[in-house]
Amino acid sequence: MDHNTDTTEQAALDSIHHLAIVVTDVAASVAWYQANFKCAVTYQDATWALLKFANTSMALVIPAQHPPHIGIQVDDAARFGPLTTHRDGTRSVYVNDPDGNALEMMARA
Amino acid sequence: MDHNTDTTEQAALDSIHHLAIVVTDVAASVAWYQANFKCAVTYQDATWALLKFANTSMALVIPAQHPPHIGIQVDDAARFGPLTTHRDGTRSVYVNDPDGNALEMMARA
Repeated sequence: MDHNTDTTEQAALDSIHHLAIVVTDVAASVAWYQANFKCAVTYQDATWALLKFANTSMALVIPAQHPPHIGIQVDDAARFGPLTTHRDGTRSVYVNDPDGNALEMMARA
Repeated sequence: MDHNTDTTEQAALDSIHHLAIVVTDVAASVAWYQANFKCAVTYQDATWALLKFANTSMALVIPAQHPPHIGIQVDDAARFGPLTTHRDGTRSVYVNDPDGNALEMMARA
């Protein structure tokens, strides 16, 4: 396949909606990230938090909830499998890349 | 600390320059990502590749080179330690968050 190898076509590229890393203490990690970065807390509870950066977001999740993953908004996410609707209203399906890295294929809206 | 908790101040937030995941076969992974996403190959050799998405980039690195990490452009990156100049001209220092997640603190230019 040959998708947009011309880097001038930025508007046509897919967007990385968020990246999720695993933390053991959400409140402590939110405090650490806020102390070290200019980021905004979009959501926070005891099980996860979402930190907004200028160009994408970082999710801090506890181990029981999700694997570390990258959420990418794609056309026709359902081509990767049945979509699940999440508590925040997004719809997605998890897929592994050839090395087992977890990717969350997200519908655009 | 209280950095920009007002989400209207997007221009002041730090940017995520790239996220790096580990792959075993760079060429095979580049082909897989291009088959599944609209992304552009900014750089590729046998040891790593850089894929451009609409809002940030994804680095595919072989295990010997780097840990999985998140590269974030920050003010005064040297506050995190001595900066190293890399083969692509960027200057950065690696730091672990409280849970051992690797972060690359990058100077802005």
